[in-house]
Amino acid sequence: MIDFRTHPDDYRHWRLAVDGAIATLALDVDEGGAIAGDYTLKLNSYDLGVDIELADAVQRLRFEHPLVRAVVLASGKDRVFCAGANISMLATSSHIDKVNFCKFTNETRNAIEDASANSGQRWMTAIAGTAAGGGYELALATDHILLVDDGSTAVSLPEVPLLAVLPGTGGLTRVVDKRCVRRDRADFFCTTGEGVRGRRALEWNLVDELVPRSRLDDAVAARAAALAEDSDRPAEAKGIALPPLARTVTDDGLAYAHVHVALDRARGTATLTVSAPDAPPPVEPDAIYAAGADFWPLALARELDDAILHLRFNEPALGTWILKTAGEADQVAAADAALAANAGDWLVREIALYLKRTLKRLDVSARSLVALIEPGSCFTGTLLELALAADRSFMLDGSFEDSNLPPATVRLTAMNTGPLPMANGLSRLASRFFGDDAALGNALDAVGDDLDAEAADALGLVTFAPDDIDWEDEVRIAIEARAAFSPDALSGMEASLRFAGPETLETKIFGRLSAWQNWIFQRPNTVGPDGALKLYGSGVQPTFDRNRV
Amino acid sequence: MIDFRTHPDDYRHWRLAVDGAIATLALDVDEGGAIAGDYTLKLNSYDLGVDIELADAVQRLRFEHPLVRAVVLASGKDRVFCAGANISMLATSSHIDKVNFCKFTNETRNAIEDASANSGQRWMTAIAGTAAGGGYELALATDHILLVDDGSTAVSLPEVPLLAVLPGTGGLTRVVDKRCVRRDRADFFCTTGEGVRGRRALEWNLVDELVPRSRLDDAVAARAAALAEDSDRPAEAKGIALPPLARTVTDDGLAYAHVHVALDRARGTATLTVSAPDAPPPVEPDAIYAAGADFWPLALARELDDAILHLRFNEPALGTWILKTAGEADQVAAADAALAANAGDWLVREIALYLKRTLKRLDVSARSLVALIEPGSCFTGTLLELALAADRSFMLDGSFEDSNLPPATVRLTAMNTGPLPMANGLSRLASRFFGDDAALGNALDAVGDDLDAEAADALGLVTFAPDDIDWEDEVRIAIEARAAFSPDALSGMEASLRFAGPETLETKIFGRLSAWQNWIFQRPNTVGPDGALKLYGSGVQPTFDRNRV
Repeated sequence: MIDFRTHPDDYRHWRLAVDGAIATLALDVDEGGAIAGDYTLKLNSYDLGVDIELADAVQRLRFEHPLVRAVVLASGKDRVFCAGANISMLATSSHIDKVNFCKFTNETRNAIEDASANSGQRWMTAIAGTAAGGGYELALATDHILLVDDGSTAVSLPEVPLLAVLPGTGGLTRVVDKRCVRRDRADFFCTTGEGVRGRRALEWNLVDELVPRSRLDDAVAARAAALAEDSDRPAEAKGIALPPLARTVTDDGLAYAHVHVALDRARGTATLTVSAPDAPPPVEPDAIYAAGADFWPLALARELDDAILHLRFNEPALGTWILKTAGEADQVAAADAALAANAGDWLVREIALYLKRTLKRLDVSARSLVALIEPGSCFTGTLLELALAADRSFMLDGSFEDSNLPPATVRLTAMNTGPLPMANGLSRLASRFFGDDAALGNALDAVGDDLDAEAADALGLVTFAPDDIDWEDEVRIAIEARAAFSPDALSGMEASLRFAGPETLETKIFGRLSAWQNWIFQRPNTVGPDGALKLYGSGVQPTFDRNRV
Repeated sequence: MIDFRTHPDDYRHWRLAVDGAIATLALDVDEGGAIAGDYTLKLNSYDLGVDIELADAVQRLRFEHPLVRAVVLASGKDRVFCAGANISMLATSSHIDKVNFCKFTNETRNAIEDASANSGQRWMTAIAGTAAGGGYELALATDHILLVDDGSTAVSLPEVPLLAVLPGTGGLTRVVDKRCVRRDRADFFCTTGEGVRGRRALEWNLVDELVPRSRLDDAVAARAAALAEDSDRPAEAKGIALPPLARTVTDDGLAYAHVHVALDRARGTATLTVSAPDAPPPVEPDAIYAAGADFWPLALARELDDAILHLRFNEPALGTWILKTAGEADQVAAADAALAANAGDWLVREIALYLKRTLKRLDVSARSLVALIEPGSCFTGTLLELALAADRSFMLDGSFEDSNLPPATVRLTAMNTGPLPMANGLSRLASRFFGDDAALGNALDAVGDDLDAEAADALGLVTFAPDDIDWEDEVRIAIEARAAFSPDALSGMEASLRFAGPETLETKIFGRLSAWQNWIFQRPNTVGPDGALKLYGSGVQPTFDRNRV
């Protein structure tokens, strides 16, 4: 079982050092510290275990270190920055593991960009020694790339020539779309194993700054200080500790304080039930700080994030996630109001951004998402996003015959109208009503209203609103039908239907780039017995089917 | 060998009828007319042969029928509109054939949208009887979908539930991005084999209009007349005949009047050499009409289009296309000037649009494109687009030692600055300098100038400008290296690097949707011995690996 929970005290591969406004995160991979399998993490290459620690560090820097305004990504080894994803690991991984590994590493790099763009925590990279493949892609996720100009230090994306795969962590996209490297230069760069050094790397905008090795430390310090100046992080603040996430894992489920997951292996489903806070969450900043990791929205983000990752990696055969909520809508609305009232506070901003990233994970999870809106539920504001993220939602019209719970309602809050955008840059509401401004306007007019099934259906907020008589059959048939379809066709379909409208760097990475990479991860030229990935390092040259597809 | 040349007199599957401003194109598939292989084209299902005729009809309607302002797509059979791509054909096709088939059919549907959007020839669909899968996708490419409301006529995308593939001709993208169907409704629609009928189809915006069967003919006539009213097609004009394209095919090449293709199977290359006109092309409209299909820009578009398709389908092992030109730059510039001077003329507009579509075919061809700019070449205006479409270009700086030809120059014309956009909506120049407005501005300032290698290199119009001493080695090494890489990795890389910047319906279809479909076309759940596509119609249910990827 893969566990995504870790702590700096337990890191095997990274060293995090904080000095005032500047943090340095140094990659110093423990060669023998592979998360699983029989491979050695040579040359600062990484596997999922290394990236789990990176994701943890990105997260903790934001919450535990409010005064850190610039983060320097560097190598803890002398002659190499990072050789990218470990090739033996890739060569021996299953298709499913390769795809999920790439998705998670992409999310981590997106989180770095999110910190730079939205958290006032600007990231830069100092490269002394080779930054190859995923190593350079890591640098591409930061705002500023500083390269030692010593005649040997190079950046490279050697995946195509050496391994017959794509740079799978956003490299192709970021080179042309973020750094605006001219496409023909990018073509040369991505087909040259040795990479590009010095002046050409700068001229082609593959890096931002060159320094002689002797001036490296000074240049990094100066640049980090300059980046820190731009930041809107607080001048004085105390960090919020993120203690180990408490959870219970059993054969048929997973339980956190506010998120419960019930697994049904026969049906191929995981039912996630998210509970509202029991009491009104604090509204005053001091009380929010005092609550810390127990503040419901933060606890929710952490628990949901962990549950999504757990299910993705450890329960691949559960193809449908059923999304439910339980509790008082007013408590959820109160939590949303606390977030809105303190939107300018650094901690509250971080919490909203964390919720955003967690919900984005849901959007790119290769699982069918079905929301069930029943009496006793609280699909309000932040929790309504779960229903809006779902591929389909059912809302019971009325009550169940054998229950005295009043009919369910749903409620929009300010959290539905902007702070939690999808990867395409639109709110889930705006994505839902893409091209139909009238419908979007009607929904926005209903913010704050308790909407029963009929009203929610009329506004287009739910897919179907069956009554007590039809509910059980309709829901059962939908879930059984889903389980009977090809999981692969569903993944491709869902990835296509979920992201109407504009495209961004992120949607390009998860849509175009990842889809091509997934294809290549299936091709005999790459993964067949004579394929490049299988034969890498063996001394035997791959044999390619030369037909173009 | 697949031949894309055809003529209405030879159609086996379509009937084209023109009545004043309205044309009707009726699909009436000859069941026994499969292009190859042992399958029957039941229920108006189609294969490549059917689509080659459709592409021809779309083209001829534009050139040969200037007075046609609305085109009605209909079925020539009583009880079915179109069942989509033939499943037995798909099930027995190689991966490469499936992918190329989808690409071509997508290009045909994009050509229909191009006619509606840019040619004043508005397309509509009249559906009486089932429109399933590719049948409905064909309708989605038209401006208006009229559906008979008879309790049985339905539109559907049953690919996911029945075949474990995606609707591969843009259906998923057009449903959410063009018709703005709400994503949860789209999810339901794409997972229900029987499709959606009548009122719900209209309410969900899957169609535009419902009519009882008894009123079908009247409703079609009225709608077509209304669409024709909007058109800016000429009131009086004579069509330009598109006679059979003359070409010679030999073992090692392919020759048209202006395009010569030399095949080098050992190196895995096809060298396309495009020749400038021998004499200044006509500038006056009457003279252009008189020249007709011999007018150089039109002849160029037709020949290049046919050559691209021939190489794609018949020469898959030639992974690199080398692009060359020969002749006088001034003649090319004169042809471009003739296009610019008559941009408002219906025929000249058609020719520019055809050139645009042909160059777009190049952009989405899964081949490495290398432009060689040598003395004697004429990379000017429209022909310079070939170099701008290339993944990499080499321009000789100076002359060859053993030749008295003067050094090569390149020249930008008005054709490079807008009329020939890529699928992303930008000119190749604007795509090239995406994010670098200064570089784009400098290039635009140089329109009309003859630029030698140094100047072209300084402006960023070419990738490398070696001199005579380095030329041969540098070009040879680049081409040999390309041939040594995995063809699949190159396809994925090129598809990612060629389209920086904005995304459109088209780039979404060729990037996101097609990449997912290619992946699915490799998955055992679809194409394995127990996969859905293999077992369809056998009565045996597929067995799926239930793990989500």
